[in-house]
Amino acid sequence: MSRGITIEEAVGRVRPLDERAARAARERQDGLLKPRGSLGELEALSIRIAGITGQVKNTLTRKVHLLFGSDHGICDEGVSGSPQYFTRVLMELYAASGNPADGQCGINVLCRHAGVALRLYDLGVKGLGPRPGIDSSHKLMPEGTANFARTRAMPPETARAAVELGVRLVEEAREEGYQMIGAGEVGMGNTAPAAACIMAALNRPDPALVGRGGGLTDEAFANKKRVIVEALRLHHPDPDAPLDILSCVGGLDIAAMTGVFLGAAAYRLPVVIDGVISIAAALLALRLVPGAKEFMIASHRSAEPAYTAAAETMGLTPLMTLGMRLGEGTGCPIAMQLVDDALAVMNEMGTFAGASLESEYREELRA
Amino acid sequence: MSRGITIEEAVGRVRPLDERAARAARERQDGLLKPRGSLGELEALSIRIAGITGQVKNTLTRKVHLLFGSDHGICDEGVSGSPQYFTRVLMELYAASGNPADGQCGINVLCRHAGVALRLYDLGVKGLGPRPGIDSSHKLMPEGTANFARTRAMPPETARAAVELGVRLVEEAREEGYQMIGAGEVGMGNTAPAAACIMAALNRPDPALVGRGGGLTDEAFANKKRVIVEALRLHHPDPDAPLDILSCVGGLDIAAMTGVFLGAAAYRLPVVIDGVISIAAALLALRLVPGAKEFMIASHRSAEPAYTAAAETMGLTPLMTLGMRLGEGTGCPIAMQLVDDALAVMNEMGTFAGASLESEYREELRA
Repeated sequence: MSRGITIEEAVGRVRPLDERAARAARERQDGLLKPRGSLGELEALSIRIAGITGQVKNTLTRKVHLLFGSDHGICDEGVSGSPQYFTRVLMELYAASGNPADGQCGINVLCRHAGVALRLYDLGVKGLGPRPGIDSSHKLMPEGTANFARTRAMPPETARAAVELGVRLVEEAREEGYQMIGAGEVGMGNTAPAAACIMAALNRPDPALVGRGGGLTDEAFANKKRVIVEALRLHHPDPDAPLDILSCVGGLDIAAMTGVFLGAAAYRLPVVIDGVISIAAALLALRLVPGAKEFMIASHRSAEPAYTAAAETMGLTPLMTLGMRLGEGTGCPIAMQLVDDALAVMNEMGTFAGASLESEYREELRA
Repeated sequence: MSRGITIEEAVGRVRPLDERAARAARERQDGLLKPRGSLGELEALSIRIAGITGQVKNTLTRKVHLLFGSDHGICDEGVSGSPQYFTRVLMELYAASGNPADGQCGINVLCRHAGVALRLYDLGVKGLGPRPGIDSSHKLMPEGTANFARTRAMPPETARAAVELGVRLVEEAREEGYQMIGAGEVGMGNTAPAAACIMAALNRPDPALVGRGGGLTDEAFANKKRVIVEALRLHHPDPDAPLDILSCVGGLDIAAMTGVFLGAAAYRLPVVIDGVISIAAALLALRLVPGAKEFMIASHRSAEPAYTAAAETMGLTPLMTLGMRLGEGTGCPIAMQLVDDALAVMNEMGTFAGASLESEYREELRA
């Protein structure tokens, strides 16, 4: 197992897309048997992936989804509609009898159906002991984060450790031969730190950016808005310092996923964003190194207002609008199928040249 | 081969969703290991399909895509950016060496990748002779439709024959064991009759509903708007008479696809809508029998303004936003993969009861 690299080393590793490969991919797309640009996002995805791998044609057969479980002290403020022990229960269910490939939760089924391996990490789930199918060797805070309405969610060095863990897991995934990464989470109440991180990074402590998450009453929703806005006032994290934001109002899940998004850029693998918790991490990774954006794929449009604010700032347009709000990273395996479609177009469509169409004719057809 | 049924017989066959099965499917979704409704459109699709088949669990392994080629006389008015013989060239390319499964165009690749059979029908492609891989036994107008800027696009009896052909092809597909249908088209200039049909059915002869289609100059685009608005003024088809609309300003492709959408409802198979030409046909089918809507799945959001107008009127929300404008029905095989995901969730996710969670606990988790 790798000992890993620091955040600074990971940032230093991030290189732009391979322009030569991306240009060759664009040229090939323009020569395929269709009007230029008519396959929209499928074309854009295949070109971006060429820029990531350095090859025009790609087949990303081996895919992995990294799911992080952690508890959030902010639940003490009543920001979650569900009791905190559900984090543990769900982690146990994902692990099934020790092999997540056999599980029966949403992420298990969707990963299995899309041919995506599923890995589970307990970073700080209260009451969850060692268990087959769950990697608990990185349990950074056994009781989860602290209540950020009162104190920092985690020490700065823990935020760093979680981010660096995410980077390292991507490195290890790449060493194992994985070619595309998904990232998901489970942790009751985690839409609260996600909204707080986005509001902090955008420097917009606007209660309208706080979403309802799962099943809050109107009263509890009003309380959640107040708690988050007040916590931002208490800590006033530096908008340009992702580690400070994570330490003040983040979560272990969000920190590790920030590392996954950073690591995907550092180790040049496409990585899929799920909903609001996922995009909070993607936004923080982008603050660490703007070039990370080229490695990110936005899967589906979350209804949470902080998601929209982050996606707009980042210039990301999600591929799907499915009204999903389950978490677990459930949008990732679904979007990976669309990536496969995009690559099939690039790999298997014929060209005007190959179809022996006369050149004048060719110019007209692809105009 | 079936001799087919009339439009009126098909309309008479359309029944609502099986409410008992849909209710049982909703109950099962509500008992799955997730908060109620948190898988959004995936839940809705699986419930709708239960209502279509009458069974809670479904696996739609056998899928077919019906692609209709036809030429459009309105091209004489300069409404297409491409020369008309491209319709023939593309049909020949789809057919490959006689087996569309080997083809190298967008629809060939996407169908192959999604495990969808592809069938090609020449309804009126100029200059296209008999050819292996293309069914030309329904070539209703060998030179394509007439120029609807001057005269009816087709005689009313031809419009009827094309619609009834579409119905019959669905019946035959079902007899062959197909469980889900896609419908696509190729025909230079066919965004013009599509917009005209939608504008006629909505009784909104508004030039803002006309889109640019593929590769028109500003001048040609202004001309296209004028041509369509004037043609609607010339024919003033009855907004409530789909056959009149098809006869006045339609296309053979749109008419046959109207039949496919009607047939899908009559023979109870889910059917996928692609872009603006496809949704024009879906809208006309819905005018024939409103209950047809329950069998339709909108795949991706087209940028053509008439698409948006039709989708809003029909109350359909597309699953994806991919910036696609290729036609051929390319959105259909992609969306079918999402349907498969939705069915996997219904079939394979565990229940609260099965996970032996206490009932109180269960109520909280799924709230």
